[in-house]
Amino acid sequence: MGDSNRIVIIGGGAAGMSAATAARKVDPHCGITVCERGSAVAYAHCGLPYFISGIVKDHRELFVYPFEHFRDDLDIDVLLHTEATALDHGRRTVTVRSVRDGAVHDLRYDSLVIATGACPVTPSYAEFGFANLFTFRTMDDALRLSDYLSRRSPGKALVIGGGLVGVLMAEAFALRGMDTVIIEMRDALLPEFEEEIAGKAEEVLRTKGISVFTGLSASGFDCENGIIRGVRAGRYLFEADLVLCASGIRPETLLLGEYAGKSGALETDDRMATPVRGVYACGDCTTAYHTTAGRRLYRPLGTTANRQGRVAGENAAGRYSIFSGIAGTQALKLFELEMARTGLSGEEAKQAGIRTVDATAVSPSVATYIPGSHPITTKVTVEAGSGRVVGAQMAGCGEVAKRIDVFVSIIQNGMRVGDALNLDLSYTPRCSPIWDPVLYCLKEVHKKLNR
Amino acid sequence: MGDSNRIVIIGGGAAGMSAATAARKVDPHCGITVCERGSAVAYAHCGLPYFISGIVKDHRELFVYPFEHFRDDLDIDVLLHTEATALDHGRRTVTVRSVRDGAVHDLRYDSLVIATGACPVTPSYAEFGFANLFTFRTMDDALRLSDYLSRRSPGKALVIGGGLVGVLMAEAFALRGMDTVIIEMRDALLPEFEEEIAGKAEEVLRTKGISVFTGLSASGFDCENGIIRGVRAGRYLFEADLVLCASGIRPETLLLGEYAGKSGALETDDRMATPVRGVYACGDCTTAYHTTAGRRLYRPLGTTANRQGRVAGENAAGRYSIFSGIAGTQALKLFELEMARTGLSGEEAKQAGIRTVDATAVSPSVATYIPGSHPITTKVTVEAGSGRVVGAQMAGCGEVAKRIDVFVSIIQNGMRVGDALNLDLSYTPRCSPIWDPVLYCLKEVHKKLNR
Repeated sequence: MGDSNRIVIIGGGAAGMSAATAARKVDPHCGITVCERGSAVAYAHCGLPYFISGIVKDHRELFVYPFEHFRDDLDIDVLLHTEATALDHGRRTVTVRSVRDGAVHDLRYDSLVIATGACPVTPSYAEFGFANLFTFRTMDDALRLSDYLSRRSPGKALVIGGGLVGVLMAEAFALRGMDTVIIEMRDALLPEFEEEIAGKAEEVLRTKGISVFTGLSASGFDCENGIIRGVRAGRYLFEADLVLCASGIRPETLLLGEYAGKSGALETDDRMATPVRGVYACGDCTTAYHTTAGRRLYRPLGTTANRQGRVAGENAAGRYSIFSGIAGTQALKLFELEMARTGLSGEEAKQAGIRTVDATAVSPSVATYIPGSHPITTKVTVEAGSGRVVGAQMAGCGEVAKRIDVFVSIIQNGMRVGDALNLDLSYTPRCSPIWDPVLYCLKEVHKKLNR
Repeated sequence: MGDSNRIVIIGGGAAGMSAATAARKVDPHCGITVCERGSAVAYAHCGLPYFISGIVKDHRELFVYPFEHFRDDLDIDVLLHTEATALDHGRRTVTVRSVRDGAVHDLRYDSLVIATGACPVTPSYAEFGFANLFTFRTMDDALRLSDYLSRRSPGKALVIGGGLVGVLMAEAFALRGMDTVIIEMRDALLPEFEEEIAGKAEEVLRTKGISVFTGLSASGFDCENGIIRGVRAGRYLFEADLVLCASGIRPETLLLGEYAGKSGALETDDRMATPVRGVYACGDCTTAYHTTAGRRLYRPLGTTANRQGRVAGENAAGRYSIFSGIAGTQALKLFELEMARTGLSGEEAKQAGIRTVDATAVSPSVATYIPGSHPITTKVTVEAGSGRVVGAQMAGCGEVAKRIDVFVSIIQNGMRVGDALNLDLSYTPRCSPIWDPVLYCLKEVHKKLNR
């Protein structure tokens, strides 16, 4: 292996492990080392809330591959509890440190992949050290939280932040039978979604007994012996046995901070290469080219991390591989409510300089005479002149995520509303009404466009 | 209304009523008359099996609009119990006859829309008049069957024919607690689906206690006092209290039989015009242009009938309107099993002169650690040289119909496998695995293509 390509990957999340696996597929002989700060790699990050709720009984169910798979089957060295602290571009070395014993050494690389991900942002008043204050991002976070829940059985959970992590964790706490409150400083939950759609999340959370306070900022904690007893917000004091801080994330770009863009994330080219020779970056520490916006945006997501990681790994191993960009797709399921989006929201279109027409329609998930038919709210945004579909968002207690996938294809193919209305979509009464919600809302926006 | 356009529509099914409604939208003043042989129009044809199973309690739930809607809101004359018997192209009249009292009269038209649909084919041994022999196509058929079921509570149902109607009616009988047998002369059920996919239907039917005999032809009945007691098939004699004959349909083209093509159905141009001036045809009595096959095929389906009817009605009322064709999409749900297809099967592609590569893959419906994850079988067919996706079929106890809709868009946009793999489809563990079955199977066929 002396003369073979040495690839070092910093971060063993979705991007890093995809990069490692892809590199091995391209080059059976290169050396591959992954450094991961935490205690686990190759687990289903998006499944962690279900371990907390109890839907997933054992955290080991979330491992996509056993740890040995990488060593034994793929000949990949995975160094756990190991963080990268410095980079020497000239000598092509990265300095790594054991977070356990502090031991430091240098790794030489021919290609380096930075897949350091993102970390939770915590507000200034949240000095850490409180035994009942948590963030939630990694398997280690989940294990710490799960352990606390089992040992202490706290009754009252307070979630600071009503973004994706906040609402999913509120669901998890509620499913465990905890009295749960969400505080969100903005006027609506889930800023990725437009008002008409995000409102459905608030509805379902309230229906399930979760208290939601929007337009309210937490300002501090009431503590006793290193334990938070209450959270102050506006004129309120919320009693809490457990506080989850889910106020957002920021990209971890320490090693290459000087190349971060306005969003704070690393900018790369289509091959995921940074401006530094031999250094690639991928996943939640980078921006991605948004094909409808026509520019790079920071949209950290597991699926994107996987795809970018694969491209970075292939390039690091010597193949010429291109990341085709993102469409701005995102989905979640909250209790029985599915929500999904793709393309641009009205606001994002405006920022991208696209003049739009939109329509919002409510139509049934399946034929109305079939039990279990539920209303689906769909919002479609099209470019005013051309009629090109640029965005879609949906919510409802029925099949929404897969319907958004139809919009993904409509948008990535640059289809105009009139052409999309000719899609010969499937129909059977137990799966959709005669006019599927996708077509129904396209019809509505088509009418507006031709007015 | 003396000088206004007079539109006569023969048939009040999906195509005919869509034509009538569309014509009214285009021209508020034209005269519109619909002649319907049966006793009902504007009902959800595909919902009829659920009225038999009892999922739909009252047949009136299946009416999309009340009968009065057409007269009072749309000024459309609907003549029930009225069939067309002759056409005079020169004088532009159609002779209609009351099926109740035999009264005959002529209707003058400026535009005529033939939407006579299709009728069940019955085998030669099935002379009618047996009180317990049924076909199942119209609301009247459903009412007659439902009435018999209520009055006589037959215990044993025998279904001749394992196509779409046959399997759905077998489901309905089984849900009513009847002992149910299907006899199908071909070697597999559901000829619209490829073997790997159709096999799933047979599996689920058997699981539900329905006996399925394939490769077996019914050859006659054992009767007593005008009642069938048994069905002979091969060396078997099946006892039966009720026989449903579901051996297929044929287009009803009596009025224009001389213009029927090889399939027996009427051929039209893109505007749904027949070769006879002023005469349009649409729905189950016509062929449709299949965009992937590149030629007209007979694929009678409710969704196609709706779309064609709209186009025929718009043209009849004076607008220039084009039917964009079909993609060969079809879906059904049988108990918990969803099945769907679009584009061309391998065999259809061969007939269309397309050389193909295909892959069949089994992958989970949602993340495997989520309860209720089920295997989905997907078969994707692509053109050998170009990699263009030409067909997809899926089956499984999970979301299949909406996933096929993603393939509809992939195929109608002429996407190649490599490009389709770049679709930024949604991911959330409770709605799909990281690699959605759509992408998973595309990956498999991509590998084969590049071998």
